[in-house]
Amino acid sequence: MVFRLSHAGGSEDEAGFLAAAADLAAIPGVEEFQILDEVSPKNDYRFGISMEFADQGAYDAYNAHPDHVAFVEGRWEPEVEEFLEIDYRAGDGAP
Amino acid sequence: MVFRLSHAGGSEDEAGFLAAAADLAAIPGVEEFQILDEVSPKNDYRFGISMEFADQGAYDAYNAHPDHVAFVEGRWEPEVEEFLEIDYRAGDGAP
Repeated sequence: MVFRLSHAGGSEDEAGFLAAAADLAAIPGVEEFQILDEVSPKNDYRFGISMEFADQGAYDAYNAHPDHVAFVEGRWEPEVEEFLEIDYRAGDGAP
Repeated sequence: MVFRLSHAGGSEDEAGFLAAAADLAAIPGVEEFQILDEVSPKNDYRFGISMEFADQGAYDAYNAHPDHVAFVEGRWEPEVEEFLEIDYRAGDGAP
Protein backbone atom coordinates (compact mmCIF):
# COMPACT_ATOMS: atom_id res chain seq x y z
CA MET A 1 0.00 0.00 0.00
CA VAL A 2 1.35 3.42 -0.92
CA PHE A 3 -0.47 6.52 0.23
CA ARG A 4 -0.49 10.24 0.85
CA LEU A 5 -2.15 11.87 3.87
CA SER A 6 -4.26 15.00 3.96
CA HIS A 7 -2.01 16.22 6.80
CA ALA A 8 1.01 18.47 6.38
CA GLY A 9 4.40 16.72 6.35
CA GLY A 10 5.91 16.64 9.83
CA SER A 11 2.64 17.62 11.53
CA GLU A 12 1.29 16.16 14.76
CA ASP A 13 -1.65 14.80 12.79
CA GLU A 14 0.74 12.95 10.52
CA ALA A 15 2.64 11.51 13.48
CA GLY A 16 -0.63 10.46 15.10
CA PHE A 17 -1.76 8.65 11.99
CA LEU A 18 1.55 6.83 11.61
CA ALA A 19 1.47 5.77 15.27
CA ALA A 20 -2.04 4.39 14.82
CA ALA A 21 -0.97 2.60 11.64
CA ALA A 22 1.98 1.04 13.48
CA ASP A 23 -0.49 -0.66 15.81
CA LEU A 24 -1.68 -2.76 12.86
CA ALA A 25 1.50 -4.79 13.34
CA ALA A 26 -0.06 -6.31 16.48
CA ILE A 27 -2.97 -7.88 14.61
CA PRO A 28 -2.58 -11.68 14.41
CA GLY A 29 -1.17 -12.94 11.12
CA VAL A 30 0.73 -9.76 10.24
CA GLU A 31 4.41 -10.45 9.48
CA GLU A 32 7.31 -8.28 8.33
CA PHE A 33 5.36 -5.11 9.07
CA GLN A 34 7.02 -1.90 7.89
CA ILE A 35 6.04 1.72 7.47
CA LEU A 36 8.33 3.25 4.88
CA ASP A 37 9.08 6.65 3.39
CA GLU A 38 8.23 6.74 -0.31
CA VAL A 39 10.84 8.97 -1.96
CA SER A 40 10.47 8.57 -5.73
CA PRO A 41 9.97 11.91 -7.49
CA LYS A 42 7.98 9.96 -10.12
CA ASN A 43 4.85 9.53 -8.01
CA ASP A 44 2.89 11.55 -5.44
CA TYR A 45 2.71 8.97 -2.65
CA ARG A 46 4.55 9.79 0.57
CA PHE A 47 4.47 6.61 2.67
CA GLY A 48 4.15 2.90 2.23
CA ILE A 49 2.90 0.18 4.53
CA SER A 50 4.28 -3.26 3.81
CA MET A 51 3.29 -6.51 5.49
CA GLU A 52 3.28 -10.21 4.71
CA PHE A 53 0.86 -13.03 5.40
CA ALA A 54 1.51 -16.75 5.45
CA ASP A 55 -1.51 -17.53 3.30
CA GLN A 56 -4.87 -16.24 2.07
CA GLY A 57 -6.59 -17.28 5.30
CA ALA A 58 -4.23 -15.17 7.38
CA TYR A 59 -4.86 -12.20 5.10
CA ASP A 60 -8.63 -12.65 5.25
CA ALA A 61 -8.54 -12.87 9.05
CA TYR A 62 -6.53 -9.63 9.21
CA ASN A 63 -8.98 -7.90 6.89
CA ALA A 64 -11.91 -8.89 9.09
CA HIS A 65 -10.17 -8.22 12.44
CA PRO A 66 -12.01 -5.54 14.48
CA ASP A 67 -8.81 -3.53 15.02
CA HIS A 68 -8.21 -3.40 11.27
CA VAL A 69 -11.81 -2.48 10.50
CA ALA A 70 -11.70 0.26 13.16
CA PHE A 71 -8.46 1.65 11.73
CA VAL A 72 -9.86 1.75 8.20
CA GLU A 73 -13.04 3.50 9.25
CA GLY A 74 -11.61 5.74 11.95
CA ARG A 75 -8.25 6.79 10.49
CA TRP A 76 -7.64 5.55 6.94
CA GLU A 77 -10.80 6.77 5.25
CA PRO A 78 -10.87 10.27 6.81
CA GLU A 79 -7.12 10.98 6.70
CA VAL A 80 -5.75 9.36 3.54
CA GLU A 81 -5.94 11.59 0.49
CA GLU A 82 -4.80 9.10 -2.15
CA PHE A 83 -3.57 5.52 -2.13
CA LEU A 84 -2.79 2.50 -4.26
CA GLU A 85 -3.18 -1.01 -2.97
CA ILE A 86 -0.60 -3.46 -4.25
CA ASP A 87 -0.90 -7.14 -3.35
CA TYR A 88 1.88 -9.56 -4.20
CA ARG A 89 1.73 -13.29 -4.29
CA ALA A 90 5.00 -15.17 -4.76
CA GLY A 91 4.34 -17.39 -7.74
CA ASP A 92 4.85 -17.84 -11.46
CA GLY A 93 6.78 -14.64 -11.82
CA ALA A 94 9.41 -15.66 -9.29
CA PRO A 95 12.85 -16.09 -10.87
CA MET B 1 8.15 -1.10 -9.39
CA VAL B 2 4.78 -2.43 -10.49
CA PHE B 3 4.03 -2.88 -14.18
CA ARG B 4 1.93 -4.39 -16.91
CA LEU B 5 3.35 -5.75 -20.16
CA SER B 6 2.00 -5.33 -23.65
CA HIS B 7 2.25 -9.13 -24.02
CA ALA B 8 -0.56 -11.58 -23.41
CA GLY B 9 -0.56 -13.33 -20.04
CA GLY B 10 1.23 -16.67 -20.26
CA SER B 11 2.78 -15.88 -23.65
CA GLU B 12 6.35 -16.69 -24.70
CA ASP B 13 6.98 -12.96 -24.99
CA GLU B 14 5.94 -12.51 -21.38
CA ALA B 15 8.21 -15.35 -20.25
CA GLY B 16 11.08 -13.90 -22.26
CA PHE B 17 10.67 -10.50 -20.65
CA LEU B 18 10.54 -11.95 -17.14
CA ALA B 19 13.66 -14.03 -17.81
CA ALA B 20 15.52 -10.93 -18.99
CA ALA B 21 14.28 -9.00 -15.96
CA ALA B 22 15.52 -11.77 -13.65
CA ASP B 23 19.06 -11.15 -14.96
CA LEU B 24 18.95 -7.73 -13.26
CA ALA B 25 19.56 -9.61 -10.01
CA ALA B 26 23.16 -10.20 -11.12
CA ILE B 27 24.01 -6.49 -11.29
CA PRO B 28 26.33 -5.50 -8.42
CA GLY B 29 24.56 -3.86 -5.49
CA VAL B 30 21.19 -5.53 -6.06
CA GLU B 31 19.90 -7.30 -2.94
CA GLU B 32 16.70 -9.16 -2.09
CA PHE B 33 15.68 -9.30 -5.76
CA GLN B 34 12.17 -10.59 -6.40
CA ILE B 35 9.78 -10.72 -9.32
CA LEU B 36 6.27 -11.00 -7.94
CA ASP B 37 2.74 -11.53 -9.19
CA GLU B 38 0.56 -8.51 -8.47
CA VAL B 39 -2.90 -9.83 -7.68
CA SER B 40 -4.97 -6.94 -6.31
CA PRO B 41 -8.20 -6.40 -8.23
CA LYS B 42 -7.90 -2.72 -7.28
CA ASN B 43 -5.17 -1.86 -9.78
CA ASP B 44 -4.21 -2.86 -13.32
CA TYR B 45 -0.59 -3.86 -12.70
CA ARG B 46 0.32 -7.50 -13.21
CA PHE B 47 3.86 -7.90 -11.89
CA GLY B 48 6.21 -6.28 -9.46
CA ILE B 49 9.98 -6.15 -9.27
CA SER B 50 11.38 -5.58 -5.82
CA MET B 51 15.02 -5.06 -4.89
CA GLU B 52 17.02 -3.42 -2.14
CA PHE B 53 20.21 -1.39 -2.05
CA ALA B 54 22.55 -0.75 0.85
CA ASP B 55 22.71 2.98 0.17
CA GLN B 56 22.18 5.69 -2.42
CA GLY B 57 25.57 5.01 -3.99
CA ALA B 58 24.69 1.38 -4.63
CA TYR B 59 21.41 2.45 -6.22
CA ASP B 60 23.10 5.06 -8.41
CA ALA B 61 25.69 2.51 -9.58
CA TYR B 62 22.90 0.07 -10.49
CA ASN B 63 21.05 2.76 -12.40
CA ALA B 64 24.15 3.59 -14.43
CA HIS B 65 25.28 -0.03 -14.97
CA PRO B 66 25.42 -0.95 -18.70
CA ASP B 67 23.31 -4.10 -18.15
CA HIS B 68 20.57 -2.03 -16.50
CA VAL B 69 20.69 0.66 -19.17
CA ALA B 70 20.53 -2.01 -21.90
CA PHE B 71 17.54 -3.69 -20.22
CA VAL B 72 15.65 -0.39 -19.91
CA GLU B 73 16.24 0.54 -23.53
CA GLY B 74 16.00 -2.91 -25.08
CA ARG B 75 13.19 -4.52 -23.08
CA TRP B 76 11.50 -2.20 -20.59
CA GLU B 77 10.65 0.71 -22.85
CA PRO B 78 9.33 -1.32 -25.80
CA GLU B 79 7.49 -4.02 -23.80
CA VAL B 80 6.06 -2.33 -20.69
CA GLU B 81 2.64 -0.83 -21.21
CA GLU B 82 2.23 0.90 -17.84
CA PHE B 83 4.24 1.11 -14.66
CA LEU B 84 4.63 2.91 -11.37
CA GLU B 85 8.01 3.37 -9.74
CA ILE B 86 7.95 3.20 -5.95
CA ASP B 87 11.13 3.90 -4.00
CA TYR B 88 11.26 3.31 -0.28
CA ARG B 89 13.80 4.59 2.16
CA ALA B 90 13.66 3.26 5.70
CA GLY B 91 13.47 6.39 7.81
CA ASP B 92 11.20 8.69 9.77
CA GLY B 93 8.12 6.65 9.03
CA ALA B 94 9.56 3.51 10.53
CA PRO B 95 7.63 2.34 13.58
